[in-house]
Order: sequence, then C-alpha cells, then structure tokens
Amino acid sequence: MDDNTPNDGALAPVGVALVGAGYWGPNLARNFLACAETDLRWIVDLDTERASAVVNGRPDVRVADDLSQALDDPEVQAVAIATPPATHLPLAEAALRAGRHVLVEKPLATTAADGERLARLADDLGLVLMCDHTFCYTPVVRAISRLVASGDLGDIQYVDSIRVNLGLVQSDVDVFWDLAPHDLSVLDHILPPEVRPVGIAAHGADPIGSGQACVGYLTIPLSGGAIAHVTVNWLSPSKIRQMVIAGSRKMAVWDDMKPSQRLSILDSGVELRTPEGPEEKRRLLVDYRVGDMLVPALPEGTEALRAVVTEFAECARTGRTPLTDGWAGVRILRLLEAASVSLRSNSAMISVPDGS
Amino acid sequence: MDDNTPNDGALAPVGVALVGAGYWGPNLARNFLACAETDLRWIVDLDTERASAVVNGRPDVRVADDLSQALDDPEVQAVAIATPPATHLPLAEAALRAGRHVLVEKPLATTAADGERLARLADDLGLVLMCDHTFCYTPVVRAISRLVASGDLGDIQYVDSIRVNLGLVQSDVDVFWDLAPHDLSVLDHILPPEVRPVGIAAHGADPIGSGQACVGYLTIPLSGGAIAHVTVNWLSPSKIRQMVIAGSRKMAVWDDMKPSQRLSILDSGVELRTPEGPEEKRRLLVDYRVGDMLVPALPEGTEALRAVVTEFAECARTGRTPLTDGWAGVRILRLLEAASVSLRSNSAMISVPDGS
Amino acid sequence: MDDNTPNDGALAPVGVALVGAGYWGPNLARNFLACAETDLRWIVDLDTERASAVVNGRPDVRVADDLSQALDDPEVQAVAIATPPATHLPLAEAALRAGRHVLVEKPLATTAADGERLARLADDLGLVLMCDHTFCYTPVVRAISRLVASGDLGDIQYVDSIRVNLGLVQSDVDVFWDLAPHDLSVLDHILPPEVRPVGIAAHGADPIGSGQACVGYLTIPLSGGAIAHVTVNWLSPSKIRQMVIAGSRKMAVWDDMKPSQRLSILDSGVELRTPEGPEEKRRLLVDYRVGDMLVPALPEGTEALRAVVTEFAECARTGRTPLTDGWAGVRILRLLEAASVSLRSNSAMISVPDGS
Amino acid sequence: MDDNTPNDGALAPVGVALVGAGYWGPNLARNFLACAETDLRWIVDLDTERASAVVNGRPDVRVADDLSQALDDPEVQAVAIATPPATHLPLAEAALRAGRHVLVEKPLATTAADGERLARLADDLGLVLMCDHTFCYTPVVRAISRLVASGDLGDIQYVDSIRVNLGLVQSDVDVFWDLAPHDLSVLDHILPPEVRPVGIAAHGADPIGSGQACVGYLTIPLSGGAIAHVTVNWLSPSKIRQMVIAGSRKMAVWDDMKPSQRLSILDSGVELRTPEGPEEKRRLLVDYRVGDMLVPALPEGTEALRAVVTEFAECARTGRTPLTDGWAGVRILRLLEAASVSLRSNSAMISVPDGS
Repeated sequence: MDDNTPNDGALAPVGVALVGAGYWGPNLARNFLACAETDLRWIVDLDTERASAVVNGRPDVRVADDLSQALDDPEVQAVAIATPPATHLPLAEAALRAGRHVLVEKPLATTAADGERLARLADDLGLVLMCDHTFCYTPVVRAISRLVASGDLGDIQYVDSIRVNLGLVQSDVDVFWDLAPHDLSVLDHILPPEVRPVGIAAHGADPIGSGQACVGYLTIPLSGGAIAHVTVNWLSPSKIRQMVIAGSRKMAVWDDMKPSQRLSILDSGVELRTPEGPEEKRRLLVDYRVGDMLVPALPEGTEALRAVVTEFAECARTGRTPLTDGWAGVRILRLLEAASVSLRSNSAMISVPDGS
Repeated sequence: MDDNTPNDGALAPVGVALVGAGYWGPNLARNFLACAETDLRWIVDLDTERASAVVNGRPDVRVADDLSQALDDPEVQAVAIATPPATHLPLAEAALRAGRHVLVEKPLATTAADGERLARLADDLGLVLMCDHTFCYTPVVRAISRLVASGDLGDIQYVDSIRVNLGLVQSDVDVFWDLAPHDLSVLDHILPPEVRPVGIAAHGADPIGSGQACVGYLTIPLSGGAIAHVTVNWLSPSKIRQMVIAGSRKMAVWDDMKPSQRLSILDSGVELRTPEGPEEKRRLLVDYRVGDMLVPALPEGTEALRAVVTEFAECARTGRTPLTDGWAGVRILRLLEAASVSLRSNSAMISVPDGS
Repeated sequence: MDDNTPNDGALAPVGVALVGAGYWGPNLARNFLACAETDLRWIVDLDTERASAVVNGRPDVRVADDLSQALDDPEVQAVAIATPPATHLPLAEAALRAGRHVLVEKPLATTAADGERLARLADDLGLVLMCDHTFCYTPVVRAISRLVASGDLGDIQYVDSIRVNLGLVQSDVDVFWDLAPHDLSVLDHILPPEVRPVGIAAHGADPIGSGQACVGYLTIPLSGGAIAHVTVNWLSPSKIRQMVIAGSRKMAVWDDMKPSQRLSILDSGVELRTPEGPEEKRRLLVDYRVGDMLVPALPEGTEALRAVVTEFAECARTGRTPLTDGWAGVRILRLLEAASVSLRSNSAMISVPDGS
Repeated sequence: MDDNTPNDGALAPVGVALVGAGYWGPNLARNFLACAETDLRWIVDLDTERASAVVNGRPDVRVADDLSQALDDPEVQAVAIATPPATHLPLAEAALRAGRHVLVEKPLATTAADGERLARLADDLGLVLMCDHTFCYTPVVRAISRLVASGDLGDIQYVDSIRVNLGLVQSDVDVFWDLAPHDLSVLDHILPPEVRPVGIAAHGADPIGSGQACVGYLTIPLSGGAIAHVTVNWLSPSKIRQMVIAGSRKMAVWDDMKPSQRLSILDSGVELRTPEGPEEKRRLLVDYRVGDMLVPALPEGTEALRAVVTEFAECARTGRTPLTDGWAGVRILRLLEAASVSLRSNSAMISVPDGS
C-alpha cells in the first residue's frame, strides 16, 4: 500500500448495481446498504416504483428499469442478480461482458449447460462469478466445514439431511428443485475434495395429486464408499431441518430448529474391529466409541446474507475465488438435473461427472 | 358354558412345545410360563442342558433334543420355533404335518418361496401359522393400527421410518435383513388393504469396509400414490427409532426413544386448495391445517411378547387367523428379497407382486 | 342502540392520548394505530421530537409535551400511560379527574397505597382503570384461565413458576420487582376466587454483590391448602419460563421457550385413596392417574398487546370492567410490598389482606 | 508390602455382616457378593427365612436373627445396617463397641443427637462410620464434585434442585424427610468447605389433606452470599430430577431423566461489570458470557451401590475417612431437623450450626 494514498483505492467500497426488487432483492439491498465494503449505486427493476420503494426512495441509490443504464456507470464494479431464474443467464452474461463481477441468486441458471457457460465466461474474463448459497455462510455451516476440513471428523461415512418445510406447494417446480438446493449446496460446500458425489437417484411421490413430487428422497453415493441422503417434504405440518455428518472419529449433528443446541459434535466413532476368539468369529465386529459431546457456542443473530455480501465485495476487490463460486452453482444444477433424469427413469441411479 | 363341565375344553391352556433355547427362546419360555392360556410342556434344543436351564430345571417342563419326541405327546397342540432361520422350514413343516399350530420367529424362512410353502401348507391343513412380529403387538403399534383402520388419519400420504441402532455389524446379513424386518412388518401391519407396496428400491453403503451394507435406505412406492421410506443404520453412536405416518387428516409420530411421549397424534393435515385470484394463479396451493396434538397414554410396562403368546393361544384354540400370520411373514420376505435384488441391480426399482 | 343512527357512536373508535414515548410507548402506539377500535390522537412526551418519531411524523397524531393539552381535546376519551412508575399516580389521577378512562403500564403505581387511591378514584368516577398485564392477554394464559375457570383442572393443588431471564441486573429494583410481576399477575389472573394468596415469603440472594437480590424465591400459601411458588433469577445464561398449574384432575404445563409445545394439558391427577389390607395400613396412599396429554393448538403470531388495546377500547366504550383492572394492579403491588417486607424480616411469612 | 507375602493381608476381602433383609438389604447383599474386596459372611434378620432367600440359600453366607452371633465371628470386620431407622442407633453402637467398622443406610439415625453420638463413638474408637448416601457415588455427582473442587465452576452462586417423584405419600414422614435427604446429601457432598449452609427455611403444603406436607420447598442460604433451593413434590404425575449448580465461571446442569445428556457443563458465567458512560450509569451491569456446552460421557450402567461397597471396604482396610462419613449423615439430620422446626414456626429461617 502506498503510504501517500490515505484513502487507498483497494479499500474504497465496491460500487454495486442490484437487479431485481422482488422477493429476495430487498434483503440484498438492505445488506449492501449496511455493509461498509459495498456501495449500492443502482437498483434495477422493470417496476421502478417497486425498486424505489426497496430503498425507501433514498436519493443516493439510482433507479432504472434496464441493467444497461447501470452498466454505463463506471463506478459500478459489480452486479447482483435477484430476478427469476430464467433471466439469470442473459443478465449475468451482459454484466460479465461489460466487465463486472457478478453475484447470482440460486439457482445460477435454469440448466447446468447455461450455468457452465456463465462459469466459463467469468473464468475467461478473469471476473468473479459468485452464487448466493446463503446457508454456506451461516455460522453453523462454517463450523461444520472447518470440522471436516481439519480432519476432526475423520473419514466421512454418511451424511443424512432432512428438510421438511412449511411452504407452498408450487406448480412450476417440484420439491427437489425447491428445497434440495439448500442441502446440496451445503453438501457441496462441506465435503472434502476426495469425497464427491458419483451418482444420484431420486424417489418422489405426489400423494395429494398436485402434479409435482411433494415428498422426495435423494440418494447420493460418494466417492470412497460413503453415502449422502436427502429427505425433502412439503406435506408435513411440522418443520424439520436436520443434518447429520458422520465421520469415523466424530459426528456432527445440526438441528436448525434448536437454537440453543444448533450444532452438537459427538466425539464418537464406529470402526471395524478384528474378531477375537471363537464366539466372535461368526461376526464382524465394530467398536462404538461414545465420548463427550460438545455444543459449541455459535454467534447467533448474525445474518448470513451479510457474510455473503462481504465475501462478494472482498472477492470483487481482490479477484479471489469466492467460497461459493459459479462452478459450485454448476455442480448443484448438475445434481438437480440428474435427479430429474432419475425421477423420469423410474428412480434409476444416474452417474454424475467427476467433480460434480 | 355348561355348568356340569367345570373345566371347559375350549378354555384349557394350549399345550406348547418350544424349540430353541438360544437368544430368543428364553423370552418365549418365560411368557409361555406366565400366560394362563398356554401350558409349556416341552423345551427342545440340541443342547439339553441349556434347554433345562431356560426353565430353571422345572420338573413340569420336559426337555428333549429332538422335536419328534414332543410331537409324540398328544397334549402338545402347538409348537413355537425360535431356532436359526435356516431350520425354520423343516421344523415348521414337521410340526404342521403332525397337525400342530405353529409360531415362528422372524424371519419366517430364509426365502419367500420357502415361506410360501409353509403358509400354503398351514392353509391346506387348516392350521394356524403365526409369525412373531413382536413390534406389531406393542401398545404403540396397536394404537397406530387402530388410527389408520378407523380412518382417523385420513388417506395415507407417506410413512417415514428411521431405525438407527446400536448393535454389532454382522458378517452374514446386511443392515437391511438385520434391522428393516421390524419396519417392514410394522408397515405391513398398519397399512390399509388399499395402500400396499408396489415396488422397492434399496440403496446401501459400506463406508467401513465390512463387506456388508451398514447404512441403508429403502424406498417403497405404495398403491394410490403414497410412499414409504425406511432408513436403517448400524454406524451411529446414537440410537433413533422413529416412524411418521402422515395422513390427509392427521399425522402420527412414533418416537420409541421418548417413553413419556412415545406416540403423538397431530390433528393436522395438508390438502390441495383451488387457487383464487391472479396472485395465486401462479402456484398450486396447499392448506396446512395445524391443530391440537394428542399424546395418548399407552400402557407402559406390558411386554409385547405376552400379547404375542396370548394371540397365538387364542388362534390355536379358535382357528382364527392371527394378526401376523404366515402370509405376513411371506410379504416381508418378498420385500427383503426384492430389496436385495435392487441392491445388486444398482438400486433399480423392483416391482413386488400385488398384495405383497 | 338508536336505529336512526347508522354510524352509532358506540362503534366509533375511541380517541386515545398516549403519554410516554420511551421503551414501551412505541409498542402501544403501533397497536393503537393498527386497532380499528382506537384512534390515536395525541402522543405526549417531554421530548417531543422522540414523540414525533414514534409515529413517524404522521400528521393525524398530534404531539405535546404536556398531558393537559391532550386533555383539552374533547375527542380524547382515553389515556394510556407508559412513563416511569413514579409518574403514574399524578398522570393517571389527572386523566381520571378529567373524566378519561386510563390504561397504565405495570406497575400501576410505586406503592399499593397509591394504586388503591387510583383504583378507588376510578370506581368513584365510574371510569375504566386498566393495568397492562400483557401476559394475561397471551393465547396460552387465556387457555389456562379457561381451564381453571371451567373446573377442568379440578381443585388447584400447586402452582410452580420459574422465570430465569437474560437481562440486565438493575440498580434500582431487585429481581422480585423486575421479574415477579409477570408471574404474580398471571397467578392473580388464573386463580379462581376461592383460591387466593394468604401470605408471601421471599428469599433472595446476591452472590455477585450487586447490592440487590439477583436470585429470588417467593412462596405463596393459597387459601384452601394449595401453594404457589415463584423462582426468579437474573444470573443464568439460559432462559427458562415455565409454569406448572397442578389440579386434582389435570395438570397444565406452560413452557414459553417451546413454541411448538407451549401448553401441555395432562389428564392426570393425584388423589388420596383409602388404604386396604394390613400391608397398606402403614401408609396413606395416593393414586397417580396418568392419562392422555393434549397439546392444544394456540394462535401463534398474534400480539398480546393488540388484545390489551382492544380490551381497553371495549371497556372504555361499554364501561365493562377490564380483565386486568386497577384492583388487579393493586393486588400485585400488595404482594410485592409484602415480599419486600419479608425480605427485610429474615424471610418471615407475611400475611396479605383477604382478596389480595 | 512384604515381598515374601504373596497374598498380602491388607488385600484380603473385608469380612462383612449385613443386618436387614428388607427393601434395601438385598441390593447391598448383591453388591457385597459381587465385590472382590468384600466377603459377605453373615446376613442377619429377625425373619431368617427372608434373610436366607436374599442370598438364595448360599451355604457360604450364614444366617442369624441376632447381630451378636455375627459379632462373635472374628472374621467379621465390618457391619452394614439396612434396617428401619429407629434401630440404627442400637445396632450401630453395638457393632462399633464390638470393634467393627459400620456402614449405615440413610438416615444415619432418627435424630441429629443420636447421629452425633454414633459419629463421636466411631471417632473415639478409631473406627470407620460411613453413611450410604448412594447418589454421591454416581458418576454424575462424582463429576460435579470434581468440577466444583477443581475451581472450574468458579465461585458457587446458586444451587437449584428439583425432585418430583412418583411415589407413595407416606403417613409417617413428610415429603422433606422422604425426598430431600437425596438433595441435601448431594449438596453437602459437592459444596466446597467455604460455602456451607448457614440456615434453612421450609415451606410445605398438603393440598390433598394427607396429614403430611406433600409439596415442599427448602431455602438454604450459604456462607459467602450464595443460596441453595430444593423443591420436593409427591403430587406430580411426571417425574423431575434436576439440579443446577451455577458458578461464576461455569454452570453444571444435571438432568437425571435425560440419560443421553445427564450432565451439561455450560462454559458460561455472569459477572458484575463496571458501568461506563451516562446511559449505563442508571444500572448495574452484568456480563452474560455464553460459551460452549460440554456433555461429558459418563459411565452408564455402573451401579452406584458398587462404588459405595468398594469405598466402605477400602476405608475399613485403611482407616481412611469415607467420602460420606458419619458426620455427613449428622449434617443432613441437622438440616432436616431445622427444616422441621421451620415448618412448625411458620416457615421462619432457622440457623444451622457452623459446619453443618
């Protein structure tokens, strides 16, 4: 840093244009405004009145009904896209081609192919493409991620995720595309490089005749012999959000409905033991080691979306690859597409490309 | 009742021979001895010392190393078989051919074909063949069964069962054959006739290299669009035994690890609603009706096996078909066999015969 | 009602002046504005800027720094007071003498004598004096109140309330005056007329040397042999809010930290049984009857303060005595004062006047 | 140790005579028989048939209807007394005067004066007098005791114990004498020497008219400003056994009804903070530090009574003072007697002697 430059350019807030003033846009706007490292300059929506309302008519945030207006502003270095999925590809492409870093709401695009096109374009242009997988920025997922990465859990044996959600059954997407992206993006985020999905099978049911799967199960064999499983369900009056990540050394249990004990780390493991003596010969034996349980204090009350916005700003400034980059978005889309293929193929196991 | 007949024949205890003094035999012996409607006359085991020990050397219970000796006793009307699975077929067949009613430990036989042979033979001879699906005789399953049969739950939408058990990994059977019979027999027992399994797919994993699946998932589409799902797992340090039976009107939640709240009945349902107005047009809507929850008092402390023994005695006396007859045992074997086929076929969905 | 008056005066919203724009005032303002039966006309605070901010500068709500200005407005029929306790007496007295109905934040006054003066004045003038015991207007307390009043619980045997709260230790009030008013006002509200406090003893401790009791216990014998007990505590890192109301027929358990099971009603009771036989002669026997448990669905999400405001408006219109009138406030003050006397008297049991 | 003596005398099992074959005697007998360090030689009961049945007629255990016979046996070094409380004094005195070490069931005697007499006699004779406060030998109380002794909890601030028990209301003792000895003996055991009871007040109620207090509360100020509180209750259909031990650094929560999470240690504390700035001037402030929670693995399945018997054997051999000696029993009796005085004195706070 140049000592003669008190207000160093690299530390100036990143100028941002936000596209989309609908369901998620206001949340992003609020966080861009609150974050010291971002400067929300534009809010773009076909409905400019709505756009203006999102920022309470603040005079320092300009409103436009077309992204191109914001892209003409040289102070805009980054674009955040919170519009319906079908528009992600053209908007993100336009922003990237105009030299801007891009943050896209999930899903990255409507197809894996479109997502790949965006991820490649960003790579080619040396720009940041980030996917807003919000859950990956919660304190509990960060903690799980560190546990896995540090080797504390040992070898991953299985991951079991249950997401039973109060919510509207939707006519255009099934329960997999609606709910599973959360589980899949967390899975993608926490799994170590040597333990990756190698296939996926989807089972669905529509017992209420809605025309879409309302109850669904995803089974995901992982390289190395482990397995992940996801339960998604729209039809339950009670809400469940649980994920178990079992390793050979420790097991992490995440219960999102239990704020006072959201994450429990069991110092417990299961391992194969060599049988001894004639009585044991008949059976393979496992040792169940049951040790202490730790419930780490997690910072409650911090909004994950603030961490998303901060990560985006930092990557935009430094060129660093974000924790959840475009390729993470592509991998989720590949899994969801393979799940749809499975669903249409009598729940056959569908391979997914390496690294997906 | 004829006053001149003080000891009415129909009410005399049923004479029983018990074969097998191993793991489960002592439990059966204890209940046959305690039940007023049964008279345990013989205990048969190759190890006669062990057999004798099971009844503490009581002089009124004879010991033999061969079933034929007990079958020579005309007072023996019924035979209970608690030996290793491979011996079930010959022993049960011998007892049936000798005109005795038969109670068999689960599994009924080692193959569905063998089980069918026994079930047909019993039908042909007009004898009782009963399968000891003990869980079906617990107060909680009886209560669930009544809830379903009475229509209180409404249409079954999904059944989700989780059985994560502390136990020894076995070298000769996988986690499906070890644990899932419990879930499948309960499922078979509680489902109404119009909602039956139409297929099964099995996913397994063996992350510890034991040579057998240690973590498994069964998906069972049901006739009418509902779905059942079973999670079985040998690798968890914590024990889970939960089953959710969700209907259109109410939902039953059975948590076997929560003695003070083992069964909860939520007066809650989900049903499709006709969309109204332009805003709702985009979505299919469901109504989530959340009502009271009832936790019925269940008789704790009564042993389910006592009810098994009583049911067996009553059916032996009256010729009534037991709650869990030979065909129930056959249906469980068909599902397990289809699950094994699925497992060998890359988890393909395998059809099961009607009524299975 | 006069048929010739289509817009009947009794149904016009009640004109309200709110005094106090501090901690609780904004909550009252929001509810007065949202309630169709009230018309918030004035907001009074020494800090008029703050007062104006509370209503976002709405032109239809006038701002004043002195209650007398609002009392000059003939459209003001009712005054709500949310100022520091020491000012309750003069403000409420002025409003009552000016012929206005009055709602006062808890505590009604700083002494029982002052509270009595207000309650008597309201009675003499035929005006409504209501105490804002907000908890009494929550769905759960309403449900408990109905259970007791209907006789469903049977005879009250004991009430046990625990309130362990994250909060600031205060220098001017002890933990009893800070937390116990909630428990005492609920107790006062739900107890039937024949089961009233006859005394109170207070035990306190100040293990951190704050100069005030931080941990406290209140024991309150009730007429008829029952007992109530209150635990209040500032020093716990975990928050507990539980109240058990045990009757001879049923027991209600309120756990405010468990939103999915806030109220449980156990159809269980304990009663004395006549001993039979020589073995039982030694002991008096009780029958523990354990029946079903019901968890009634409670309307979550409704704000209790809205019900407070509505009750106030209805009483102001009709002259009906509010559920929590001035005398309820007086009874709470008498109990708190007696508790303070007990505390200064080595925790002696202090009688409280009949009906208190 | 003499190298030439392979079977060292000090390691020979302690010869034991057990007096009392009633409710608790069989449990002691079973543990004396199973413990390698004790040799159960006599079982004494007026009902010699019952005595014989307790040891299944084992020939190596002699039966007598009078303790003096056993005391004639020079191999008997220790006597365990599990008879009705009124007989403890004469039996223990006889055994001590005969030079034997003594283990007495709780309560040590029926009065503190009698208990003191025994404790003094044992001291004078240099013999071991141990009180069977079984709970103090459970893994969870041992763990709490270590936490307190090590200073890990910091300064004790309060102890809150709740014991709500399914059980028979008794005609001869009230709920305090029936249930509170458990809480008081644990309290006595875990509290450090500088934090001792200085008084006790008892509040009781008898809402069912049994003639005895069925619901009770004990408040026990501790030296140094801390406080202990005990709730005992015979009238609840649900069982609660909880104890919170709050310190300035950590808090231990013992929930005996939660086997999978019996002990939780919260790394949390509350401490006084110096106020800063004008806004804080009004209030004394506390810091609530909320850190990790640890649930230590405790050895489940080990019987506490085995540890009692082992401790008794070791002390008998070595002359070491047992963890729960006669004086501990005296202290509990003093507290219970003071509680009874309080109960008869309108719940007045009764001082207890130093060290009690």
